[in-house]
Amino acid sequence: MSRTPIYLHLSDPPTSSGDAQPSLNPSVRKRSPLEDQIEEALQDSYNGLCLNITNDEWRRRWTSLCLTTPSPAEGGSVLMPLSDELKEQQRVAELWRVSDAFKKSEVNITKLEEAENIVGLASEWLELDSPDEWVRQDSELALRQELAYASYLNLATVVLPPPRNRQHITDYARAINGCFTNSPPVLSSYVYLTIRIPLSGARKANRSGSVTPGASSSTATAPTETDVNEIWEMWDTIRTICSYNQRLSVSLDLSYPLPPSKPLLDRWNSEPLRYIFLPASAFVANNRGYPVLPKATQAFFRDIIKHRPGVIVSGTDKGLHKTGGHTAYQQYIRYLEKTSPYVVASETPGSVESFATGYWDFLQAPLQPLMDNLQSSTYEVFERDPVKYSKYEEAIYQALCDRPEDSSTIICVAGAGRGGLVSRCLSAIASSGRRATVYAIEKNPSAYVTLQEKRDTEWEGAVQLVFGDMRLITPPEKADILVSELLGSFGDNELSPECLDGASRFLKDDGISIPSSYTAYLEPVSSSRLFRDASNSLSDVKGAETPYVVMFQAVNELSAEPQECWEFQHPRHNAIIDQNGLPLTNSHNTRSAHLSFQIPQAGIVHGLAGYFEAVLYGDVGLSIHPDRKNDVSPNMLSWFPLFFPLKEPVYVPANAELDVHIWRLTDKRKVWYEWFVEAFYPTSASSTDPPHSPSGVAHMSDTNAPPPPSPMVDAPALAPEGRFEDTREGEATVEMRVKIGQSSLHNPGGRSSWIGL
Amino acid sequence: MSRTPIYLHLSDPPTSSGDAQPSLNPSVRKRSPLEDQIEEALQDSYNGLCLNITNDEWRRRWTSLCLTTPSPAEGGSVLMPLSDELKEQQRVAELWRVSDAFKKSEVNITKLEEAENIVGLASEWLELDSPDEWVRQDSELALRQELAYASYLNLATVVLPPPRNRQHITDYARAINGCFTNSPPVLSSYVYLTIRIPLSGARKANRSGSVTPGASSSTATAPTETDVNEIWEMWDTIRTICSYNQRLSVSLDLSYPLPPSKPLLDRWNSEPLRYIFLPASAFVANNRGYPVLPKATQAFFRDIIKHRPGVIVSGTDKGLHKTGGHTAYQQYIRYLEKTSPYVVASETPGSVESFATGYWDFLQAPLQPLMDNLQSSTYEVFERDPVKYSKYEEAIYQALCDRPEDSSTIICVAGAGRGGLVSRCLSAIASSGRRATVYAIEKNPSAYVTLQEKRDTEWEGAVQLVFGDMRLITPPEKADILVSELLGSFGDNELSPECLDGASRFLKDDGISIPSSYTAYLEPVSSSRLFRDASNSLSDVKGAETPYVVMFQAVNELSAEPQECWEFQHPRHNAIIDQNGLPLTNSHNTRSAHLSFQIPQAGIVHGLAGYFEAVLYGDVGLSIHPDRKNDVSPNMLSWFPLFFPLKEPVYVPANAELDVHIWRLTDKRKVWYEWFVEAFYPTSASSTDPPHSPSGVAHMSDTNAPPPPSPMVDAPALAPEGRFEDTREGEATVEMRVKIGQSSLHNPGGRSSWIGL
Repeated sequence: MSRTPIYLHLSDPPTSSGDAQPSLNPSVRKRSPLEDQIEEALQDSYNGLCLNITNDEWRRRWTSLCLTTPSPAEGGSVLMPLSDELKEQQRVAELWRVSDAFKKSEVNITKLEEAENIVGLASEWLELDSPDEWVRQDSELALRQELAYASYLNLATVVLPPPRNRQHITDYARAINGCFTNSPPVLSSYVYLTIRIPLSGARKANRSGSVTPGASSSTATAPTETDVNEIWEMWDTIRTICSYNQRLSVSLDLSYPLPPSKPLLDRWNSEPLRYIFLPASAFVANNRGYPVLPKATQAFFRDIIKHRPGVIVSGTDKGLHKTGGHTAYQQYIRYLEKTSPYVVASETPGSVESFATGYWDFLQAPLQPLMDNLQSSTYEVFERDPVKYSKYEEAIYQALCDRPEDSSTIICVAGAGRGGLVSRCLSAIASSGRRATVYAIEKNPSAYVTLQEKRDTEWEGAVQLVFGDMRLITPPEKADILVSELLGSFGDNELSPECLDGASRFLKDDGISIPSSYTAYLEPVSSSRLFRDASNSLSDVKGAETPYVVMFQAVNELSAEPQECWEFQHPRHNAIIDQNGLPLTNSHNTRSAHLSFQIPQAGIVHGLAGYFEAVLYGDVGLSIHPDRKNDVSPNMLSWFPLFFPLKEPVYVPANAELDVHIWRLTDKRKVWYEWFVEAFYPTSASSTDPPHSPSGVAHMSDTNAPPPPSPMVDAPALAPEGRFEDTREGEATVEMRVKIGQSSLHNPGGRSSWIGL
Repeated sequence: MSRTPIYLHLSDPPTSSGDAQPSLNPSVRKRSPLEDQIEEALQDSYNGLCLNITNDEWRRRWTSLCLTTPSPAEGGSVLMPLSDELKEQQRVAELWRVSDAFKKSEVNITKLEEAENIVGLASEWLELDSPDEWVRQDSELALRQELAYASYLNLATVVLPPPRNRQHITDYARAINGCFTNSPPVLSSYVYLTIRIPLSGARKANRSGSVTPGASSSTATAPTETDVNEIWEMWDTIRTICSYNQRLSVSLDLSYPLPPSKPLLDRWNSEPLRYIFLPASAFVANNRGYPVLPKATQAFFRDIIKHRPGVIVSGTDKGLHKTGGHTAYQQYIRYLEKTSPYVVASETPGSVESFATGYWDFLQAPLQPLMDNLQSSTYEVFERDPVKYSKYEEAIYQALCDRPEDSSTIICVAGAGRGGLVSRCLSAIASSGRRATVYAIEKNPSAYVTLQEKRDTEWEGAVQLVFGDMRLITPPEKADILVSELLGSFGDNELSPECLDGASRFLKDDGISIPSSYTAYLEPVSSSRLFRDASNSLSDVKGAETPYVVMFQAVNELSAEPQECWEFQHPRHNAIIDQNGLPLTNSHNTRSAHLSFQIPQAGIVHGLAGYFEAVLYGDVGLSIHPDRKNDVSPNMLSWFPLFFPLKEPVYVPANAELDVHIWRLTDKRKVWYEWFVEAFYPTSASSTDPPHSPSGVAHMSDTNAPPPPSPMVDAPALAPEGRFEDTREGEATVEMRVKIGQSSLHNPGGRSSWIGL
């Protein structure tokens, strides 16, 4: 894994007059003082410098033009003439507005050679969110001038000053969006913008007040939470107004003490992150005098490093810490990076993190193994997961052991692929000491060749192959155990229920299915990146709204835990079947769920994360449920979660409830999901003297009793924190809540999964 | 105006066995009993019949198939077999699910000839929102069967049963959407669906409880408001989930007493309305025994009739009212229609309503008279408005009278068009008795021909013409009075400020401009139709988001009154100008506004309505502000409001605040608007024991003092109910509110107004 780039912030850049004296030999260009400093930083193992694009001379000129001169509005409507002196000042300001050029002495960088290793800072003193309309306007003009200059110099990224004023954040955001969208463009399309966000909130950072660390009682931390929420809300407004522009990112400033609450930090996990600002003053001295970060900042940093931000350090030469010298900060950051659990895991062969490298946050269309024949390389990837296959072997072994010792068992592998499961059946038979016959059914003609190869070489004739679709063919005898691996990330999304309906024809009446059941789970998530990527792919295929398989990284869970959607059990008894043994309709495989999630922190719902948990046999299972997978099937690689995108982000305030409606639908030819969300806010009838009584809707819960706990996990893991209020049938809880938002309905248009018999 | 169609609801349709006996002569088809009844209804002056598509026989079969038979889910997971009898019942139900056909005896309509004059009702007993998933599913299948049959018969509209269960309204809505969108289609593309909505709420209608009329104290009416809000919320969810499908409408059922509060009724004004259900039982007897509607229902009906709904009456033969017979209901409805203020106005020549016929809710791109040269027919339409020109004449007259009696006045008409204003100048000069010279400037070369014609014939040489753009040409002498008619629906949206900047060059230092100022107003509105039409036009021109000119009808104001955005005053003094007398930049014509609206009732923000009010001179003005236009310039026709559409509807609960941000922006070449809205909900820190303190944001108002009242209107009309909390500078009100939603930023992409010099 590539190392985190670290930049040194230069607060006093050298004056750029270094090339005033031309070299006698024109082919030997004399390096400028800034180039010297860059060279020095590179020698010190920094990746470059970070500095202001302009200097105080420009600030003084702008201030005199725009703050001390009457604005174009002033005096405009009164007849009394302005003094000649003021008029002349106004004229100079207007001339600047007409055509904006820096003087060479007003900028810190003048050459392409200098700009190469530089992160540029736009002027901190620009007031894009000033309460004064004319100051905002002239700040915007000045920003455009700086950005045009940054584009000329080909700076890769410009850091914009933090927003300061919630009341005018829309003005700030609108100005930034204009830099991206106005025509003619201000910004070259190679330049990225990033907003510096003080994690402790704009007001907190301005006041540089201290935060009581660890305090969790709501009264004690309330003002802090408000500050911290406000700064996130400001960033959210900017990102929204800029339409999730992919050239816009956030840079987190850790100059001030971190908010004490982890959920308040986690939300940054789902935002596009570019830099971390870490001034020397944010460090404390350890007992040997070396600069280290406070515990909470350490933990935050070790986690956030997985998004590969650059780090910008400053004040390293101020001598704030007595040991280690000016490069100690950088060395400590490298140490934190190396010991980040994420970095350690991703460098450990066989770990999920290492396996997933390159797949983080990458949207993939789910497989349709029923409709498409898989490639050998796809099976190869499946078979690389040792955990899934040992779980299957264990399940088959237990199922065999539960049969009488002298029994003979018919095992049928439905959908044998390249034979991974078949081999595990043979091992389980061997260890169990039971007699058994194995049939392997496969519909993929190419994989069937591999199966024949294995039958003749590895399996020594112990396996009988049957070629064809499990819903159509009939093996020579009925099975005691039907083994299949047809599960998708959401359990049923690769049509396991429909396939096993067909395979049940050749299962004995008292036969068992491995898996015996699977359950789908959902939770609302926030992710700027997934939303943006799904939106782009939506606009390619108009109206096609399907879930994606994706390994989550820049994703934040908005509720305490996922909730159960629905379950499928196999085998299905008492089915109404036709003369071929197949169900007359697929109605029994439709499902619907109505879940209600408590949302503790304000956030944006960008979509729903889907997971599954399956019971293979007894207490052997498979799970990608985030809170249970490590108990049920640790280190299993085979399934990434499913992501159901929303077309429009839905804003949810803190303490909101999000109701999720999802349907698994079917007709004669297809299976598909549709989904819809509604947001509610708790209210009470006696609140704040409204002009009318609140139109809160009594919330009558009519779901059934809570599901029995999973056989694979102890009850405490099921603690229903944040869960939809389950009530015994007949009872109903009544609480007031008011609807505050909703999404569109999402349906897949033409892109359903074909049952395709 | 065409008459409202009235249909008679037939509760007991004749059995459709009328054509069992074939006629001896095949070319003389015998009419069915239903055809006889249709004929009778047409003779009674009804427009047709309304009846159930199916009858009780079908209901009994469906009930036995789907309610008394175990569902496919029951017994599915237990090994104990079902009895053979139950299995056979299940098989019959499954066979129905596989392929659905009515028996002839189960339907009320069998022939195309019968269907022609019929409004079909889908079965009222279908439970698309049942708490039982399997009942919902089978109800959906049955609905599809009825709709497929309705499509076969080519019924124009099918009325769907009212939703009953808020908890499962999403299931109801999803099923309806499936009828529109699933492939293969259920519904022919000529069939429209309409949802029957009991205006008093689903529970109220079910209970048939009575409402205390006139009660306005919030405690007394609270349950009623909740019911009424809930039924609207249910309709909103249906409309949203069906993506504002234009084949979906609402039909209002007035069977039960109306809600007492007008705002609760007004919201239906912005929904697509198809029918009004008016059973005989909703009528009361007047003192002569004739059936009439209660006062509140009368008023509602007389208003809602402007949307041209059909009316469905029922129970007219029950003898509920002793005088007038069974056609008295119909005659009374015709009477209400004829006396509806809207119908009366639209049949009065010269009224706004008559002028606007054909333009209601029709989106037009605003004129760009600066960029485009207008057609003669466009001027013709302008000149048909007598009010605007008399206001101008009055203003010019007053301005002349305010000058010394012996003065000589230079009047310059900037943008003379075909000369309408020039003629009014001459009349004003004549009545004032002052001496004056008139210059008329026009840039449209074609209109300039008309001006020459008028100069030589009508004006007898009293007017001097100058050809060219008012920002470029120079008339022979400077003017005392500059008269222009460059205003758009939002005041400045046709670039009056930019044009008058140019024309000010030839205005004397103490000269005056008519108009002397104009102010733009905004308010949030709801309108399914405008939203749908604007969305369609958005998808044609991707990313182009511009306001439209539109005469509102199916539009509901969400707040108490519009608020002021900004003002322009003329002439502008102390401007910084170049050697040609033009401003160096257009910065002074940028504006921004941040307004906050109280939203008393839950609703959907689909866009913003824009209006203007102008002061021409003294107390003479022009206004399209909805609450002031009748005082300032009654019956003026020239301007329809402006509509700023939102890309995504924003849901606002009752008592919410909607913050609107709008900017008038400019660069060297263009002028455009951008807009954005945020929704907030009032909260208090001590509410309902939240897990964290609410992240309410202190709302610091920093707007300036309220604007001085308009010189044209008395102060009471300005009562700031529902207005953004204005505070004197320095003071700040602090209240807690939590953000609950937002729109995207709307900007026009390439479709700006070009200044185009």
